[in-house]
Amino acid sequence: MGDYDVLFEPVRIGPKVAPNRFYQVPHCNGLGHARPTSLAAMRGIKAEGGWGVVCTEEVEIHPTSDLAPYVEGRLWDDDDIAGLRLMTEAVHEHGSLAGIELTHAGLDAANHYSRMTPIGPRSEGVLGGGGFEPAQTRAMTRRDFADVRRWHRAAAVRARDAGFDIVYCYAAHGLTLPMQLLSRRHNDRTDEYGGSLENRVRFLREIIEDTKDAVGHDCAVAVRLAVDELVGEQGITHDGEAAEIVAMLAELPDLWDVNISDWSNDSATSRFAAEGHQEPYIAFVKGLTTKPVVGVGRYTSPDSMVSAVRRGVLDLIGAARPSIADPHLPRKIREGRLEEIRECIGCNICVATDPKSLPIRCTQNPTMGEEWRRSWHPERIPWRRNDSAVMVVGAGPAGLEAARALGQRGHRVDLLDARRRLGGRVDREALLPGLAAWRRVVDWRLGRIEAMPEVSVYPESPMTADDVLASDARHVIVATGATWRRDGRGRSLGHAVDGWDSGSILTPDDILDDLVAGTWSVPDGRVVVYDDDHYVMGGLLAELLAVRGNNVTLVTPAPLLSYWTQFTLEQERIELRLRALGVDVVVRRTMPRVDGSSVVLASVVDGAETVLPRDVVVMVADRAPVHDLHDALLPALEDGRLDSLRLIGDADAPNLIAQAVFAGHLAAREHGEAVDRDAVPFRRERFSVPR
Amino acid sequence: MGDYDVLFEPVRIGPKVAPNRFYQVPHCNGLGHARPTSLAAMRGIKAEGGWGVVCTEEVEIHPTSDLAPYVEGRLWDDDDIAGLRLMTEAVHEHGSLAGIELTHAGLDAANHYSRMTPIGPRSEGVLGGGGFEPAQTRAMTRRDFADVRRWHRAAAVRARDAGFDIVYCYAAHGLTLPMQLLSRRHNDRTDEYGGSLENRVRFLREIIEDTKDAVGHDCAVAVRLAVDELVGEQGITHDGEAAEIVAMLAELPDLWDVNISDWSNDSATSRFAAEGHQEPYIAFVKGLTTKPVVGVGRYTSPDSMVSAVRRGVLDLIGAARPSIADPHLPRKIREGRLEEIRECIGCNICVATDPKSLPIRCTQNPTMGEEWRRSWHPERIPWRRNDSAVMVVGAGPAGLEAARALGQRGHRVDLLDARRRLGGRVDREALLPGLAAWRRVVDWRLGRIEAMPEVSVYPESPMTADDVLASDARHVIVATGATWRRDGRGRSLGHAVDGWDSGSILTPDDILDDLVAGTWSVPDGRVVVYDDDHYVMGGLLAELLAVRGNNVTLVTPAPLLSYWTQFTLEQERIELRLRALGVDVVVRRTMPRVDGSSVVLASVVDGAETVLPRDVVVMVADRAPVHDLHDALLPALEDGRLDSLRLIGDADAPNLIAQAVFAGHLAAREHGEAVDRDAVPFRRERFSVPR
Repeated sequence: MGDYDVLFEPVRIGPKVAPNRFYQVPHCNGLGHARPTSLAAMRGIKAEGGWGVVCTEEVEIHPTSDLAPYVEGRLWDDDDIAGLRLMTEAVHEHGSLAGIELTHAGLDAANHYSRMTPIGPRSEGVLGGGGFEPAQTRAMTRRDFADVRRWHRAAAVRARDAGFDIVYCYAAHGLTLPMQLLSRRHNDRTDEYGGSLENRVRFLREIIEDTKDAVGHDCAVAVRLAVDELVGEQGITHDGEAAEIVAMLAELPDLWDVNISDWSNDSATSRFAAEGHQEPYIAFVKGLTTKPVVGVGRYTSPDSMVSAVRRGVLDLIGAARPSIADPHLPRKIREGRLEEIRECIGCNICVATDPKSLPIRCTQNPTMGEEWRRSWHPERIPWRRNDSAVMVVGAGPAGLEAARALGQRGHRVDLLDARRRLGGRVDREALLPGLAAWRRVVDWRLGRIEAMPEVSVYPESPMTADDVLASDARHVIVATGATWRRDGRGRSLGHAVDGWDSGSILTPDDILDDLVAGTWSVPDGRVVVYDDDHYVMGGLLAELLAVRGNNVTLVTPAPLLSYWTQFTLEQERIELRLRALGVDVVVRRTMPRVDGSSVVLASVVDGAETVLPRDVVVMVADRAPVHDLHDALLPALEDGRLDSLRLIGDADAPNLIAQAVFAGHLAAREHGEAVDRDAVPFRRERFSVPR
Repeated sequence: MGDYDVLFEPVRIGPKVAPNRFYQVPHCNGLGHARPTSLAAMRGIKAEGGWGVVCTEEVEIHPTSDLAPYVEGRLWDDDDIAGLRLMTEAVHEHGSLAGIELTHAGLDAANHYSRMTPIGPRSEGVLGGGGFEPAQTRAMTRRDFADVRRWHRAAAVRARDAGFDIVYCYAAHGLTLPMQLLSRRHNDRTDEYGGSLENRVRFLREIIEDTKDAVGHDCAVAVRLAVDELVGEQGITHDGEAAEIVAMLAELPDLWDVNISDWSNDSATSRFAAEGHQEPYIAFVKGLTTKPVVGVGRYTSPDSMVSAVRRGVLDLIGAARPSIADPHLPRKIREGRLEEIRECIGCNICVATDPKSLPIRCTQNPTMGEEWRRSWHPERIPWRRNDSAVMVVGAGPAGLEAARALGQRGHRVDLLDARRRLGGRVDREALLPGLAAWRRVVDWRLGRIEAMPEVSVYPESPMTADDVLASDARHVIVATGATWRRDGRGRSLGHAVDGWDSGSILTPDDILDDLVAGTWSVPDGRVVVYDDDHYVMGGLLAELLAVRGNNVTLVTPAPLLSYWTQFTLEQERIELRLRALGVDVVVRRTMPRVDGSSVVLASVVDGAETVLPRDVVVMVADRAPVHDLHDALLPALEDGRLDSLRLIGDADAPNLIAQAVFAGHLAAREHGEAVDRDAVPFRRERFSVPR
């Protein structure tokens, strides 16, 4: 792999040396201080997989920077060292460096748990804690500045004592005091911390100097800086103040970790930003400093990585999401196993857990977050208990993953699908605008399966119960997916839309059929997309239909269109795109009735009704799981003609693609194992009885 | 207290005897399985305070009923017994009974943490987990019914082994499988669990019978049933199916705990429902069963309680919120200390923490949730360390509580306020429509202070720094509150509204001044209320102005008016009330500019501008803390003329009334104590290193 040798060069970072250029930048994960053992196992597997630097998420340095209910890192006092040491030990075991992102969240911290007074550059409503919290900050006093500096310094010492090699001063994402003080939008102080850029940079400079002074001999000191906020002159710009800031502090830290702000820009989904999308913003940094520079851009291609280094954009290839989708990505490059790389699809399901205070999960990597509690490894899986053969019916994300993982365990597998094209919903949905990268869920699995002689794939093989029972299958996994309901029943209405059979009522399946066939059978005219699904589908179909020239109205019972995409950081972008296409959006309405030419909408507040004309209605509501085959096989299980029968994925209960992949993986892991239906199927971290 | 003797009669509940009629019904608290020691301390203090029965919150019985990210109880396996036993021991120590609310949440459980398939009466979008989650349930199979029954039974046995006296079968609030199966809105099954009421009741009957069979000799078995959903014929009604259900199961459980559904109806705020508001719905139950009946209605008056018993409505006086505001309420009645009762104000700040996965807090009781971690008791407070006298300037919620608690500690206190009427913002805001009960925050504190010779109160005493320094005060607490900004600066806009000085621009303070004075100086005409505060004030002023005959438009940058009142379960009610009054609501707009006759609104999505005519603008945005006095005294602290100086409450940083009361209490607790500014000021429950 001579082409990629440059990626495996060591890089000096202050007093430390990173063994290669693969750098897992800080990222949230919902494990944090609440689940330190789970966190350490997850981070350790990344080091094992070849990430030369593995960092924490943001780590609160004091109870005045309390991010509850969000579960981040916590280093409030010496008692917090032990939990974080689990991580540094796990990372060091594989020769990698451990980095810690020390954070005072300033006006992003509502301090709901500590109940201490929030602080910030001025007194204003806190930005974190859920949004629109009835709490304001105190404008920082002279004592507050001295306090935070002292707390940051103490946290740096604790971080060193916990074994960290790299200690961050964090001024990015709008999430920390140093960045809030940089911002003219939040900082209108008239003292030495406000006004000129030099004054606004003062606090960042001070904490860098403090950190260098406190631990600089033992640890590298990194700065994470947002070099563009993508709000033009209202914020930091890469060709404006950011360049000045980097120039002012150029040689002070040992490492520059640079990105764009806010989080929705830094972690844009593949639907809205391509690999390397941050390069135009961050490229200038290396010209202003001799210190190593790390940046991100959802790099999964080693060629792109090498290019970024060769072109002098980056010294270290930063990654959050690609390291989640494939913790062993660097090792696969090093060992020339490129085809084994499980590429991030850029869907942000990992991101979506953090604002929900939930443990991380990943669409591509079903073992993410499960490393300790289920003892799952992303690359290894226990060998089969017996040599039973398994029939998997349905080659969507659940069936593909089940077949692949069963094959990895050494089982013979027949994977059958009724369609000619494999991949189920993923194969189809990846044809929607902007979702092409989602195909990686299918491509990676099909690629792995092709390399497995144990797994035989049979497309265009619809199966009946008789077909199954006529075969020699004794173990059957049914993964036959789901279809979108045409009657509009969903969580908000709870019953079929009256008149749902009045003609020209389409479902997402109808339109996906068109996309697969390369046809277009949607009638022209006024289209009402009724979205009681709330994830991407409604917005995607509205976009597609508007691009095709239809007059589109999207109706949703939620307060926002594509409500749940807030959590994948996409909601505003979707709304902007639809507005630009002229889509009308009507929120907080159900659609109790339709007829051949109109729809009736009812306010979710008071039931008041309005009428819209329509030519076409697209129902995006609940899905109907397809489990006929499973149900028809149940008697055979009961009378012993089958040894096992399992229903997985959307056929069991429609959910995210991530959940289908997880269900397929779980089915493969549990095949042939003794499973106690009454027991908790994973370990839990428990609170100790207090001292 | 012979009048109240009936409240102290023992009540037999199956095999157990409650020592009196005070019954803390199950209530959420955000401590739950994550903070079992905190929870046990909180529950134990209620038992100490005389609650004859003290219950848990809802307790998940299995990982398929995983309510994460919400922090409730958890009894998934035997390892969970130890945490709950802490609570039963704390309750038994005071001779009370401990009850546990076993819960399978069905379609309310998204199973985000366990990643198991959600289940429910049919396959439909899950209702819990944050709302609009892209996850559906599996329609329960025959095996699922058998599983849940077995899990419920196993949980009942564990509950008994943990020491519980009363075990619940929970069918209320729409939150559990038994209630979802009762509901025709969710249950359209065609098997023995669907169709007729008898079929829909079947599962509830089965789990009652199972529980009786498993633990009925050792424990009382309670049913918690919603007897009205307040949605008319679409749901359960007290004079319809509820009566049939109670009649069918009348003598089966040992106790009926009855209420109305959903949670927003059960826990309606004082703004929308009065003490005893559930009586019309629940009164029928006692006529159908010989078993004891408990119900709630935010009872804080012993006379109302006696009346409910005497009139045959209730056998046991249920309480959640009144027991939070005053854990020692029963004891105060028994000991004839009625004037000491700290009455719940019905604001639902306690409720608001649960949907945010945060520990409980209470406006009236600053010790709620702090019992273990800060060793705070609601009635006791350590005696003073020294006999220093303290001047408290400002008699709003923070200053009143500081003065009261300092007096309780034995300190001499001078409490001064510039106004004639004491109570600060609470005195004023309680004049707004529906908020009269909020006055209890002031009344209780003034009442306690009147009984304390140590505390002298001086109204109409505005203080300058010179006034303070001319006195003999050596310790000063400044609690001078905040004023509403007239320039409209708030979290969404971030700068003053251009033209904010163009005339007829009011703040909430102006209108509150009118209410206090009994005058009305708001010009007639078209009023734009600009609400970047998002709690109650904007909606209240819109209501008041509309009632006064103005043409009112409420503009908010949030997706919902009074956005944060979702968490106090008031948002829908506020919106309905404003709609009924003809208030126009414009969401997701900031107001960057105004002039003398119009306002310019800008979309938060794309900045598109619209113009509204206006006669009056009411700015409800950030507040400006008033800390001039504090700042003017700082030099005296530095040069030794003062020994201590502390800024608390809204004067430090504007926040909820609850936070002001907390800050006042904290100031009193910390007065004269050594406080380490660098240390975490409370204990934390920590995860043990796993086995």
